[in-house]
Amino acid sequence: MLQYKRVLFKKTTNNQLILGRQAVLEAIESGISIERVFIKKKIEEGFSKQIKTICKEMGVPYQVVPVEKLNRMTKKNHQGVILQAAEITYYTVEDILSNVYDKGEIPLFLVLDGVTDIHNFGAIARTAWGCGVHAIIIPTKGNAMINEAAIKKSAGALLHLPICRTFNLKSSLNFLKENGLKIVSSALNNTSKFVFNLDAKQPLAIIMGSEGEGVSNEVLAFSDITIKIPMANDFDSFNVSVASGMILYELLKQRRFN
Amino acid sequence: MLQYKRVLFKKTTNNQLILGRQAVLEAIESGISIERVFIKKKIEEGFSKQIKTICKEMGVPYQVVPVEKLNRMTKKNHQGVILQAAEITYYTVEDILSNVYDKGEIPLFLVLDGVTDIHNFGAIARTAWGCGVHAIIIPTKGNAMINEAAIKKSAGALLHLPICRTFNLKSSLNFLKENGLKIVSSALNNTSKFVFNLDAKQPLAIIMGSEGEGVSNEVLAFSDITIKIPMANDFDSFNVSVASGMILYELLKQRRFN
Repeated sequence: MLQYKRVLFKKTTNNQLILGRQAVLEAIESGISIERVFIKKKIEEGFSKQIKTICKEMGVPYQVVPVEKLNRMTKKNHQGVILQAAEITYYTVEDILSNVYDKGEIPLFLVLDGVTDIHNFGAIARTAWGCGVHAIIIPTKGNAMINEAAIKKSAGALLHLPICRTFNLKSSLNFLKENGLKIVSSALNNTSKFVFNLDAKQPLAIIMGSEGEGVSNEVLAFSDITIKIPMANDFDSFNVSVASGMILYELLKQRRFN
Repeated sequence: MLQYKRVLFKKTTNNQLILGRQAVLEAIESGISIERVFIKKKIEEGFSKQIKTICKEMGVPYQVVPVEKLNRMTKKNHQGVILQAAEITYYTVEDILSNVYDKGEIPLFLVLDGVTDIHNFGAIARTAWGCGVHAIIIPTKGNAMINEAAIKKSAGALLHLPICRTFNLKSSLNFLKENGLKIVSSALNNTSKFVFNLDAKQPLAIIMGSEGEGVSNEVLAFSDITIKIPMANDFDSFNVSVASGMILYELLKQRRFN
């Protein structure tokens, strides 16, 4: 019932590099799945504006870097811009949510707010796929690139489970809230309810923060509910991939067996 | 209530090396916590017998190695034998169980049957400590050494949570069974019951196998119950540290809140 069939989406591309201004602009417009666009510092202003605008429109992350970084990536003539194709296909939150509702399922999204370690990210994707999560949402900026190591650590789950990138996490959460999802942050607050007291059968977006910082204050303030995991000993916290596993297990159990 | 007070045990020693026959024999007899004793291949038979016998009596792992390995560990005169002190204190299953019953608690042991990856081991220890496990039991042979990396990965939990080593896993499980514990293996069998259907309030030893192999057949055959975790997608399995987290979370929740 929670099985996820991928029917809507374009096929995954590999990790190739595309070089040169015209080629990169055309590749972005074609809608292929892109890991990142690297733009030379001090590139001429007209082109800089043009490519940043199209990146924002198409939801493609870009990074302004010293020319030496581009020269290390290729010996060919890159004209100050290199596109790195993605190992996986990225989706938008809007695409996935509409697909989930079309199938008559109850949405379950996992939002990672600051989980930058690629091994934790891979482990979480593996768990999320096993627990029936519909998609993982990550911010475009400040997130590690999804590479072969992450895919391996996910035991291949990253090739099945849709990953949504968003330039503006808060506006994506707002979109989910407007479409009926409860925004639920994992946080060790006094006011947090235990995860097993959360009604799992409502549309949910579960937010996990980084191990050091937790969910950011801005996202916490926007949340409908905060949840926590019980703990036996006075200890700092669980590892974020283990904590994700505990929460997603509890939700899967309630959705399937209660 | 499940808080674990360490009162019975000797203090942790550091990772130092002890060299030479008499010094090593005396150190073993003194009962300090030992990671491993390294013995030169083709050492004289009388001494070989003597040290192996005392290692077995004291529950100390030993390994017969080429002399070059010993020479790499130290430039001093080692006389063919080097003892590496442990980073943590090791206990026996008997010590811990009697301590748990003395405190009037319901035993919860976690047994790792073939979890050799030191990062998984550290992550599991962190989770186990947070979930009120009384001790982790590992086999003396074929287990990775517990080093600084494991302690770091455990977020320090390995400095609190007792680790029991056993030369003979089956006989330790038998001891636990005779003392009232149910032996419960995690295994994806058709006959396995879901973990949430396991009565958590009975004395329990939970066995987790390696990711590749699972719990060994010998240990499975000795188990009273096998349990599994529900899964949404047709996928190989969860990571062993995440699976441990899901199971221990479920047991903690039942013990504390049901």
